[in-house]
Amino acid sequence: MNKIHPVILCGGGGTRLWPKSRASHPKPFHRLVGDATLFEQTLDRLQGERFAAPLIVAGEAHVDLICASMRESPSWELVVEPAARNTAPAIALAAARLDPKAVMVVCPSDHHIADLPEFHAAIARAAELAGSGWLVTLGINPTGPETGFGYIERGAALGEGAFKVQRFVEKPDLATAERFLESGTFSWNSGIFLFEAGVFLEQLALHRPAMAQAARRSVAEGGLEANLFHPAAFPFAEIEGESVDYAVMEHAERVAVVPVSMGWSDIGNWQALRDAQVADANGNASQGQAELIDCEGVFAVSDGPRISAIGLEDVIIVVDGDEVLVTSAKHAQKVGQLKGAKGQ
Amino acid sequence: MNKIHPVILCGGGGTRLWPKSRASHPKPFHRLVGDATLFEQTLDRLQGERFAAPLIVAGEAHVDLICASMRESPSWELVVEPAARNTAPAIALAAARLDPKAVMVVCPSDHHIADLPEFHAAIARAAELAGSGWLVTLGINPTGPETGFGYIERGAALGEGAFKVQRFVEKPDLATAERFLESGTFSWNSGIFLFEAGVFLEQLALHRPAMAQAARRSVAEGGLEANLFHPAAFPFAEIEGESVDYAVMEHAERVAVVPVSMGWSDIGNWQALRDAQVADANGNASQGQAELIDCEGVFAVSDGPRISAIGLEDVIIVVDGDEVLVTSAKHAQKVGQLKGAKGQ
Repeated sequence: MNKIHPVILCGGGGTRLWPKSRASHPKPFHRLVGDATLFEQTLDRLQGERFAAPLIVAGEAHVDLICASMRESPSWELVVEPAARNTAPAIALAAARLDPKAVMVVCPSDHHIADLPEFHAAIARAAELAGSGWLVTLGINPTGPETGFGYIERGAALGEGAFKVQRFVEKPDLATAERFLESGTFSWNSGIFLFEAGVFLEQLALHRPAMAQAARRSVAEGGLEANLFHPAAFPFAEIEGESVDYAVMEHAERVAVVPVSMGWSDIGNWQALRDAQVADANGNASQGQAELIDCEGVFAVSDGPRISAIGLEDVIIVVDGDEVLVTSAKHAQKVGQLKGAKGQ
Repeated sequence: MNKIHPVILCGGGGTRLWPKSRASHPKPFHRLVGDATLFEQTLDRLQGERFAAPLIVAGEAHVDLICASMRESPSWELVVEPAARNTAPAIALAAARLDPKAVMVVCPSDHHIADLPEFHAAIARAAELAGSGWLVTLGINPTGPETGFGYIERGAALGEGAFKVQRFVEKPDLATAERFLESGTFSWNSGIFLFEAGVFLEQLALHRPAMAQAARRSVAEGGLEANLFHPAAFPFAEIEGESVDYAVMEHAERVAVVPVSMGWSDIGNWQALRDAQVADANGNASQGQAELIDCEGVFAVSDGPRISAIGLEDVIIVVDGDEVLVTSAKHAQKVGQLKGAKGQ
C-alpha cells in the first residue's frame, strides 16, 4: 500500500493561550500537554510504516523553531510560505510539491489527540476513500453542544465508518448546537483532511482557478535548499487568503466524512488545555512549581516563580515572564480581550 | 493637660500576609493600605498637640527599617529589645523609660484605623481614666461574629463611653461569638492600651514581680546612643515571654474598656487587607499593574509583573518576587499553612 504523506500546517499566532503563546513563540512550539510540544506530538503520531516523510508548511517567522525541532529527523521538508494566505493556498503549495497520486493527510500542528489507535484507524479508513478520489475530512463525534466549532452533517453511508458529507455548517448558536448534538448525525470539523494531491489541485482549479495556478507556478519556480523549499513569492503573494473549507470542501462533489472519537482537542483556550491535562484526584494539574490547598479543577502553570493557591475552584493560573494570568475556566475564552493579549 | 506618650510595638514576623510580609521585611513596613506603611500610619495618628514624642519598642532586626522611617522626625526614641519576649516585657521596658506619671498609649504598629476622629475621641476618654489610675483598653465594637479575636465583656459604666471590664475572653467558637455579638456588651480586644507608666509597673510588680524587676534593672543598666536605647541584655533575656493581657490586664482590679467604632482592622490576613482597601464599584482593588475583567471583590497586588484576571469573585492575587499567591478571600487564613509561608 502506498504511504500517506503527512502535511503539517503551522499557521497563525493565537492569542487565546496568552501569555504562554505569543507571536514570537506561538502555540505549536510549547510543551502544553506532556513533555513534547504540540508540533512534535503532531509529527510523532504521523510516523511509522504507513507514513512518508513529513512536509511542513509554515511562515518565515517559524523556520528557526521548526528546524530546531527537526534536527534529529532523517527526512523532511519545510515549505516556507512566501506570505500568510490561510489554509487553501498553503495546502496547494504542499500538493504541488507531491506526486499527483500521493495521498496527503493535512493536519494542524496545534491540536491534541489522546487516543492514537482511534486516530490511526480513522486515518486508515479515510486514506482508502482518498485513494479512490474522495476529499475526506475527519469528523469529531461531539461531546457537548460546542458553539466554537464548525459542524459537518452526514449524508449517505460510504461503507464502514464513512459518510458522504451532506453539508458543512458554520459555528452554530447554542440552540442549534444542542439540536446537532441530539441528532447524532453531526460531527465537529477537525481541520484534518485526506485527499490525493492531484485530486485536490483539480478541485481547486475548478473552484479557485487563480489560486491553483498561482500555487503551481510559485512551486515550479521555487528552489530547494537543504530541507527548506522556498516557493517563488510571485504570484503566490497575490492570492487572496481563504480557508480550504470555503475554497474547496464546501463546493466539491465527492466529499466524505469519517467520524471518530479520539480524545481530540484544538486546545483553543486555557480551559481546553486544562481539560487535556492528566489531573489528580481533585481535578488539579500543574506545570512548574505549585502548591495547591483546598483546590478543585485548578490548572497552575509557571515558567519560574512558585504558585501557591488556596480554596479555588475551576481557576487557571499562568505565570509567564512578566505576565500573570488568573482566569476562571468558564471565562477562558475572554483571554483574547486582555490588553496583554492584544500586545498593549 | 499632660501629653500622652505613644508607645509603638513592632514585634512579630507574621506569615499571614505572606508572600508580601516576610521575616526580613515584615508587615508594619509595607505600604499595604494607601501610600504610607502601617508603621508610618501608626506614628502619624499619634502626632499633634496631645502627644509627646514617640517611643518605639522593636527587635534588632527591625532597627534599620525603623531608623529609615524616622529620618525626618525631630524627636523619638527606639528601645531595642535584647530579646523577643512578647508584649508584657516590651511594654515594661517602655514604662521604665518614662516618668511614672506619664500616660502611655500602647499601640501595635501593624493595624489600620480608618476613622481618625473616632480614634482620637476614644484616646481622649481613655487617657482621662488612665490619669486616675485605671488600666484602659480600647474595645472595638464588633461588626461580625469573629472567632479570630479575644473579647472583652463590659461591666458597670464609668461615666460617658467607658466601662469597668467584667472579664476578658479567649478567642471564642462561632456559636459563642454569635452570642457575644447579639448581647451588645462585648468588644474585640484591640491591643491598644492606655495607663500611667508607674501604675503599669506597680501592677506588673504585683502580678509578675520577676518580670517587673528584670525590666527595670535592664533599663537602669542600659545605654542611650543617639535615638537608640539599648537595655542591658541581662536580666531581660531571662524573662519568660508573656502577653500583657495574661501578665497584667486579666489580673488587675481597676481595668476599664472604652468601646469604639473606628474602622479598625488588625490586617490579620489577606481578606482583612482587601476589606481595608478603597475599592471600585465592583469591589475590586489593586496595587501595581492589573487589568480585571468580569471580576468582583478581587484584590490584585504586584511588585512588578502585570496581573490579568478574568471572571473571578472574592479572590486575592499577590505577586511578590518569585512567589505568586492566589487565594479565595474566605480561605485567606490558611496562607500560613503554605510551604512558602513556612520558609520551605
